[in-house]
Amino acid sequence: MYSVRMRSAEGGAHEAGGRHISGAERIVAHDKIGETSNAMLQRAFAHTRGRADFINIVVEKIDKHSMQEVPLLPIYTIAGRSVVEGHQTAERALCEAGVTLMAAKKGMEALLSLPDSMRGAMLLCAVTGQRVDDTQTRGIRVSRMDIEDEQGFIAKLEQRGIHNNHVREALVLASKVAAAPGMVAELCWSDDPEYTTGYVASRVGYIRIPHCKPLGNAIGGRVFFVKPDTKLSVISEYLEQQPVLVTLAERL
Amino acid sequence: MYSVRMRSAEGGAHEAGGRHISGAERIVAHDKIGETSNAMLQRAFAHTRGRADFINIVVEKIDKHSMQEVPLLPIYTIAGRSVVEGHQTAERALCEAGVTLMAAKKGMEALLSLPDSMRGAMLLCAVTGQRVDDTQTRGIRVSRMDIEDEQGFIAKLEQRGIHNNHVREALVLASKVAAAPGMVAELCWSDDPEYTTGYVASRVGYIRIPHCKPLGNAIGGRVFFVKPDTKLSVISEYLEQQPVLVTLAERL
Repeated sequence: MYSVRMRSAEGGAHEAGGRHISGAERIVAHDKIGETSNAMLQRAFAHTRGRADFINIVVEKIDKHSMQEVPLLPIYTIAGRSVVEGHQTAERALCEAGVTLMAAKKGMEALLSLPDSMRGAMLLCAVTGQRVDDTQTRGIRVSRMDIEDEQGFIAKLEQRGIHNNHVREALVLASKVAAAPGMVAELCWSDDPEYTTGYVASRVGYIRIPHCKPLGNAIGGRVFFVKPDTKLSVISEYLEQQPVLVTLAERL
Repeated sequence: MYSVRMRSAEGGAHEAGGRHISGAERIVAHDKIGETSNAMLQRAFAHTRGRADFINIVVEKIDKHSMQEVPLLPIYTIAGRSVVEGHQTAERALCEAGVTLMAAKKGMEALLSLPDSMRGAMLLCAVTGQRVDDTQTRGIRVSRMDIEDEQGFIAKLEQRGIHNNHVREALVLASKVAAAPGMVAELCWSDDPEYTTGYVASRVGYIRIPHCKPLGNAIGGRVFFVKPDTKLSVISEYLEQQPVLVTLAERL
């Protein structure tokens, strides 16, 4: 199996100050590498956030024995009618997952005050809400994961009427993240200006929350809330390096 | 136009200690990006030096106005029957290009004593033969170049009976290198175990030298001989960053 991953930016490479446009993560068999990387190229050039002028694709062999399996999180939706309601729902869901109200509010604030989307996620202490990672505006990028049975997964999402790229990718990512050592919960909404549904995820499940931001807003991001005694090097290594295959726990 | 470049390694990424397998450089129009990167992927997986398990492809837009044009070097061949003769020819050609005999011998020695191929080139003083760059085993990689009229170029090489991937790519690279500020000459032979012809290039021309190494030897490399007063930052910037289009000076 091969990890195929892409990151794209506008105004030069990320490391040269370019603006992050999009990213993608797949784990595929050798004969799918070409088609997967082509799809990623096209995507980078056609993103709603802008047209990338820098694209980096990495193809890397993964040792089968190093692959960890984690279950797909169960999916819930908590409906709401406004962004205010959406934010209240998110706060409540974070608290139920074990984040303090103070930390939940700080996490929300951190996302809302971003000047632009980050490539990766911010790590916050689930008790104090203090940022604990040292990646500044880059963030920690969750990498090397995919779903085990893509067709079954898509069928499952279609059956529930929630199949789109955002949900598909976010669910796989959130399932990997929820299984991280020391992880309490994740808060996320997309940077796609046309997609306003966000989510709170933890080992309990993936809670979809409509209206996490106003339509047309192109700033999104991820906050990971971690236990106070979490070792940064251990959790970063898991999120960035550990190959994870997400399994469909409930078969269709 | 877009710079599309690839580097591949075996045993992990270059930066993680992997062994360099192959590299490629193109500058293409937007509609050729997919096909170009696919060809690079296939090449990385089918190289004579080994099968890559790490491939990095970068696609980057190039501002037309930043592109520099340099002429294709005229091509000569100095035949010989043995590796000993090949090395003598190379030394002589380097001296004729302005490298001291001492520096030429040191450059030859530097290539011959490599434990494995480098991703980039070593920079040596053309007078003393001392290494002047600080890239250790990585080397300085010449990047962002291509030929202006690929079909005309291939036809020209075919007409002379010297058309193959090695010559095509080396000529474009050597033409860019020869035009670098402070460059005196280049010495190179391939790391392809099946290709033993090397070359010495300078502004005067590209001199092909058969038998620069024994058949089956998978270690090759590049040495750039530079004037003693050359500023490392200036020449590195040109070699690595300056987009260059090599033009066919003599039209067919």
